[in-house]
Amino acid sequence: MPAKQFTNLKEFAAIIEGFPSSDQSAEAGAKARNDVLTKPPGALGRLEGLAAWYAGWRGQAAPTLENPLVIVFAGNHGITAQGVSAFPAEVTAQMVVNFEAGGAAINQLSKAFGAKMSVHAIDLDIPTADFTTAAAMSEAGVVAALKIGWDSVDPAADLLVCGEMGIGNTTSAAAIASALYGGNGDDWVGRGTGVDDDGLKRKADVVDRGVALHKTDVPLETLRCLGGREVAAITGAIARARVEGIPVILDGFICTAAASILEKTSAGALDHCVAGHVSAEQAHKRLLNHLGKEPLLALGLRLGEGSGAALAIGVLKGAIACHSGMATFTQAGVSDG
Amino acid sequence: MPAKQFTNLKEFAAIIEGFPSSDQSAEAGAKARNDVLTKPPGALGRLEGLAAWYAGWRGQAAPTLENPLVIVFAGNHGITAQGVSAFPAEVTAQMVVNFEAGGAAINQLSKAFGAKMSVHAIDLDIPTADFTTAAAMSEAGVVAALKIGWDSVDPAADLLVCGEMGIGNTTSAAAIASALYGGNGDDWVGRGTGVDDDGLKRKADVVDRGVALHKTDVPLETLRCLGGREVAAITGAIARARVEGIPVILDGFICTAAASILEKTSAGALDHCVAGHVSAEQAHKRLLNHLGKEPLLALGLRLGEGSGAALAIGVLKGAIACHSGMATFTQAGVSDG
Repeated sequence: MPAKQFTNLKEFAAIIEGFPSSDQSAEAGAKARNDVLTKPPGALGRLEGLAAWYAGWRGQAAPTLENPLVIVFAGNHGITAQGVSAFPAEVTAQMVVNFEAGGAAINQLSKAFGAKMSVHAIDLDIPTADFTTAAAMSEAGVVAALKIGWDSVDPAADLLVCGEMGIGNTTSAAAIASALYGGNGDDWVGRGTGVDDDGLKRKADVVDRGVALHKTDVPLETLRCLGGREVAAITGAIARARVEGIPVILDGFICTAAASILEKTSAGALDHCVAGHVSAEQAHKRLLNHLGKEPLLALGLRLGEGSGAALAIGVLKGAIACHSGMATFTQAGVSDG
Repeated sequence: MPAKQFTNLKEFAAIIEGFPSSDQSAEAGAKARNDVLTKPPGALGRLEGLAAWYAGWRGQAAPTLENPLVIVFAGNHGITAQGVSAFPAEVTAQMVVNFEAGGAAINQLSKAFGAKMSVHAIDLDIPTADFTTAAAMSEAGVVAALKIGWDSVDPAADLLVCGEMGIGNTTSAAAIASALYGGNGDDWVGRGTGVDDDGLKRKADVVDRGVALHKTDVPLETLRCLGGREVAAITGAIARARVEGIPVILDGFICTAAASILEKTSAGALDHCVAGHVSAEQAHKRLLNHLGKEPLLALGLRLGEGSGAALAIGVLKGAIACHSGMATFTQAGVSDG
């Protein structure tokens, strides 16, 4: 079945509203299986719930996880003109070269956890507009970026991680979070790649001005006005994953902000997503709380690229390996307490 | 160089006192390398310190992690006569069969993270003595168990995880922790495999009586009087790993109690160990605090077998993959901010 297409934000919103649900029978089958595996009840902690969740989205009571896919999107941000980043904007393109050459952290993590990885640099020579003066993107622009994400997801994947690279994009993510969940720029900005105290003040001010300029209660409009091309691509990819029955591990603050556009459009739209980690970017924890997502890892990463989520592939692989590979009490001839 | 041998607890204590240190030059080399990798400073959070720690113990500034070894030790405990476990003692032997047949959680996790796994069932038909009435083991008995652990470590491994199986062994671990770090049985007992409220009270009482009966300020004597054969084997294996320059990921409460015998014998004796996770067994967190170890994972596991530590192999593999595989700013032609 080919995935639905969309040509404007209204059609994309309709896809979100019509998202399929998890397979309750597969999830129930997984829970029943979990109850008879050779371990005390609950002894695998969060791994047990993770396996059942994954089983539901895969539609199999004893699923496998063999084809994880990592997609890294890159975009440039007009907002960098406001001095919100510790690194110059040309680093976005330089890092794309690094991703393509296999030299970045996400390359090593993808390899370590057996994930295919692809990179999509989106119009790096056309930064989004500075959102303190204009909408970051036109409707055609944001739809094009959503479609790049949507089309990038291989339906044969059984797990998706989305990463991003875009100097200035923690500022964009902070503006999105502020617009969707309230709070000032101060509540949502952090040091990103390492901005100093003055830069941090500028970021908060830029966020406040952007949010004030682009008031709307349509989350996809927030994405258009305050987002970036790589941010919108992540939104599109996570939506496509849902339609294809592919569970998603969310990465850090920027990825989670991109995802929250879906949840604000339709409650439950992120039920196929688990939070891979909580980053050192302080607003990430706040945003995860709004989404009701408990992170799997808390190791102080703040790199983006999909790195924290890729690391969490290991946890999910472990959960699925136990769930689908362990013997039952009966099979093993073990007394069940 | 063949590893030193020991024939009694005094000789084993001398080995602990003479433990080798980490290679400071390799660790410094790793830190210098970390500073020039293509990421903002500190952006990989705890992965950066982990890689430097591992580099120091492996004696290489850019190490590999290719031969992780998981060893599961099993033993039986006379203390089970006191009704301290939710499962009958015969489950220890049944689970050993399950380990050998590949059906347990630790089998799946070892496979998922590319670790070799071996199982050592130690005199299951000769439970240790009930430590409320006698020392759990004779000196010859505990030395034999330490040597089983010591001899089980393949010097070619580049990472060690020790797991355990032994109905009743959370009670033994609680007694060891209470003897080494103070506090009552109440402070150190938990539900283990799922004991009820009455069982929990019995556990605390048993711990208090055992600790009162076997007062000593020699940690290896504590191990002899309150430990189990599988507990002592873990102590021996972790010691051997230190001598061979093999970093260790500690598992849950029982493994950590076994390890703490070394630390109490000589401060710093666990510097080659990292805490893989904090278990749902509440005393584990307390014990890790005493050891100054911050766990890598907190996923509510309480299974033992080495399962939490095995899951953390993924985190360490990710850390080493990034550290040793990433491009430097110069190599990648990326501006360094």
